Amino acid sequence: MNPPHSIDLNSDLGESYGSWVMGNDEAVLDLVSSANIACGFHAGDATVLLKTVVAAKARNVRIGAHIGYNDLTGFGRRAMEYDHEVLVAETIYQIGAIQAAATTVGATVDYVKPHGALYNRIAVDEAQAAAVIEAMKKLNPELPLMVLSGAPIVDQAISEGLTVIQETFADRAYTSDGRLVSRTQAGAVHHDPQVAARQALAFATGGSITSIDGDPVTVHADSICVHGDNPAALDLVRTIIDTLRAHGVEVRRAR
Amino acid sequence: MNPPHSIDLNSDLGESYGSWVMGNDEAVLDLVSSANIACGFHAGDATVLLKTVVAAKARNVRIGAHIGYNDLTGFGRRAMEYDHEVLVAETIYQIGAIQAAATTVGATVDYVKPHGALYNRIAVDEAQAAAVIEAMKKLNPELPLMVLSGAPIVDQAISEGLTVIQETFADRAYTSDGRLVSRTQAGAVHHDPQVAARQALAFATGGSITSIDGDPVTVHADSICVHGDNPAALDLVRTIIDTLRAHGVEVRRAR
Amino acid sequence: MNPPHSIDLNSDLGESYGSWVMGNDEAVLDLVSSANIACGFHAGDATVLLKTVVAAKARNVRIGAHIGYNDLTGFGRRAMEYDHEVLVAETIYQIGAIQAAATTVGATVDYVKPHGALYNRIAVDEAQAAAVIEAMKKLNPELPLMVLSGAPIVDQAISEGLTVIQETFADRAYTSDGRLVSRTQAGAVHHDPQVAARQALAFATGGSITSIDGDPVTVHADSICVHGDNPAALDLVRTIIDTLRAHGVEVRRAR
Amino acid sequence: MNPPHSIDLNSDLGESYGSWVMGNDEAVLDLVSSANIACGFHAGDATVLLKTVVAAKARNVRIGAHIGYNDLTGFGRRAMEYDHEVLVAETIYQIGAIQAAATTVGATVDYVKPHGALYNRIAVDEAQAAAVIEAMKKLNPELPLMVLSGAPIVDQAISEGLTVIQETFADRAYTSDGRLVSRTQAGAVHHDPQVAARQALAFATGGSITSIDGDPVTVHADSICVHGDNPAALDLVRTIIDTLRAHGVEVRRAR
Repeated sequence: MNPPHSIDLNSDLGESYGSWVMGNDEAVLDLVSSANIACGFHAGDATVLLKTVVAAKARNVRIGAHIGYNDLTGFGRRAMEYDHEVLVAETIYQIGAIQAAATTVGATVDYVKPHGALYNRIAVDEAQAAAVIEAMKKLNPELPLMVLSGAPIVDQAISEGLTVIQETFADRAYTSDGRLVSRTQAGAVHHDPQVAARQALAFATGGSITSIDGDPVTVHADSICVHGDNPAALDLVRTIIDTLRAHGVEVRRAR
Repeated sequence: MNPPHSIDLNSDLGESYGSWVMGNDEAVLDLVSSANIACGFHAGDATVLLKTVVAAKARNVRIGAHIGYNDLTGFGRRAMEYDHEVLVAETIYQIGAIQAAATTVGATVDYVKPHGALYNRIAVDEAQAAAVIEAMKKLNPELPLMVLSGAPIVDQAISEGLTVIQETFADRAYTSDGRLVSRTQAGAVHHDPQVAARQALAFATGGSITSIDGDPVTVHADSICVHGDNPAALDLVRTIIDTLRAHGVEVRRAR
Repeated sequence: MNPPHSIDLNSDLGESYGSWVMGNDEAVLDLVSSANIACGFHAGDATVLLKTVVAAKARNVRIGAHIGYNDLTGFGRRAMEYDHEVLVAETIYQIGAIQAAATTVGATVDYVKPHGALYNRIAVDEAQAAAVIEAMKKLNPELPLMVLSGAPIVDQAISEGLTVIQETFADRAYTSDGRLVSRTQAGAVHHDPQVAARQALAFATGGSITSIDGDPVTVHADSICVHGDNPAALDLVRTIIDTLRAHGVEVRRAR
Repeated sequence: MNPPHSIDLNSDLGESYGSWVMGNDEAVLDLVSSANIACGFHAGDATVLLKTVVAAKARNVRIGAHIGYNDLTGFGRRAMEYDHEVLVAETIYQIGAIQAAATTVGATVDYVKPHGALYNRIAVDEAQAAAVIEAMKKLNPELPLMVLSGAPIVDQAISEGLTVIQETFADRAYTSDGRLVSRTQAGAVHHDPQVAARQALAFATGGSITSIDGDPVTVHADSICVHGDNPAALDLVRTIIDTLRAHGVEVRRAR
């Protein structure tokens, strides 16, 4: 459906809440191909959600349900225990809310990307992952799930019949076995835009990146996560896109 | 689609929240034909919502989106001002959340019934009514809207192309021009189950009821609202159903 | 207690929430003498509240309990009905929360200023005003209440034994009988910093301002409300302070 | 301060929320000597809090700040990660809120008892415990902290200068080294009221109880936790009190 030399860029959007503005959604939507739109549990509210869905659709940007823990104060970034049935129900609820917003503009939710602490937890925790997967299967087994490339959840979701979108991070260092370097470690983040852009290009073309230990390593990338919450971040996204295009790789817009 | 001698009974359900239990949902679901299920803004949460939808579907009870103001502490019973776009967005959000729950059991949302202060406000306030109607038209113009029989919103919604379900109350007194007697007035509530049951029968058969002033008055009833939050209320529902059946009127179960 | 040629400047602060930043609290705290600090119901959270109280105390800025409706999504700006006992209880709760924060730095809450829709409502609505006043009397009858200058609540609060701080607005036009011109009316806001600064000087010195109809009018000002949520607003505060100082009027810092 | 033959009985109260009723507060307050009153984060709201404080004071029952995680849906029973400063701030906030309620009836908060997941976590987790302790020291170092008897937090809090109230459970089995038997283990709960009452008597008199393995073990008890959320629980409390009195031990009411 997409040209071979293309890659999906995704970004977290719709994170404003009531009178509180967060991010530069309009600017980011002009650049990326997939919008992970907050569904009101960790960020976003019904109004922000609807507006962001409308804005994404207007640019033919794919609409992702950015589901999260029910933790507004902690922005969904705090690890939490969850009863299985509650996580199933909240996943269904959030996807339903954004699906309705999408319906109003003749669109559908294209994928689900868990946020923050939920994202990190289900990458490796089979139990919470099972709740999210169960919810998606109950609601719509065709809906793809975007998760951390190479994480245990990839096989778990595939074995349950879900389509998985494996995402990578342009500005994060990887270990020699293709895992993210923890943010608590020195060198975890690439501050040089050129390094990040080259890494993105490698992801997009299936080439190898250089691990934090200097080894070449190939990380599977169906999508690359970028951020746009400050001017420097936006500049980095533009640098990445310029680098991709200079090498004949397009950002995947059309569905 | 329904036998001529039948009437819809609806009741508010799914109003528990987290560890707090409210109502006798299982018992009520065995009696009524339509469940107004709270969508998490004034009551209910994702887990309660899903459970209640499952329980309603299992009994072939119609699933109504009981949407409300975003006011958990006040149970959606407090009058509130709303920006138009916020009320539109919250209506879409809530209906989407319950629609997703319904989808998991192969069901659909059958109608929308606003709750509490929102119900009372839109009955007469054209502006807030317009927001709810706009949301429903954007999401699914086929979705019926359940409102107070004879209220101004009936014509407003019909003129906008919506199907309207006009509901009446078995245990509430009506004025001679067919309007509800305010709860602040003496005699507003029928405490005698037989009176309430006879009134329900009149609603169901198109007959006239006796107004608070003693006049016969006919009130259009597509559905009758009943309550089941205490044993006496449940008994009243049973008395109503017995009376209806004794006169050949069935509660409308099959869809 | 204060030098005769001084005036209190107050501003709304502590309105960030979780990960959402609002305002320029540090910059504003360097300028004003009274901080209306959000108590977590319409804005602010426990962490922001504590930080803002600490920052205010460090600058010897007076600490005001900026209480509001329990409406985070609406930022406390939506008119709401309230049961009397609920408004009493929420007022006590919010003042208690900020009082505890103040206690940790050896300070006390200096006054209470209702926010947004609650502020506007109690200015003229005797019933909701009575709830706030009752709460303050129960908690600490010595606590002053900051309200709209000249509004009906001024006499109501005084007759109940409270101390009242009447506040005015430097950048808002007044009618010839000393009332605020509604924001819906043209000319309601002074966009010229010099006009606002001259008006502030008149408030501070007991002189007359020029009403929207060109008449001289004197408005009682125990405090002047200023804003600092954008660079232009901060510049206006600095212009006001410069003008005041040029005429020998100090911003009232010491308690 | 108290007669030698007396013991404190504490119970969780004020856990209703908005329109949702939980527990039998009035009945329990007639029996116990200390009320752990929810502060609005895991349960309770401002109105319920104030009412419960008033009801406790009216019976001369000690007022405890029952602080919890900010998790209404999960009733504060879900393990959560917390930033240190957030837990400090929320502890201060909650204690302040209930302190204000107590002030309105001429009372003070007598102690702090963390709830649910927070209670369990700080019993053994030094970091979260440090946040609660720091908050209490900042606010009022005289305020006693009620925690699980024999848990690591006991020494931690004492070494920080706090007074500790060690509580035990009448209806829970203990190991031979004086620790609670996990609820996941068979025999964790004493279902026989006589067994629970005898255990309470042992706690109150400093005698030994019989561990789950049949050994005698002495557990230090400054207070005994009881429940009253259903008729059987209330009966158990009455049985305990009867047994205590039959042996000359009074429930500690007067302060």
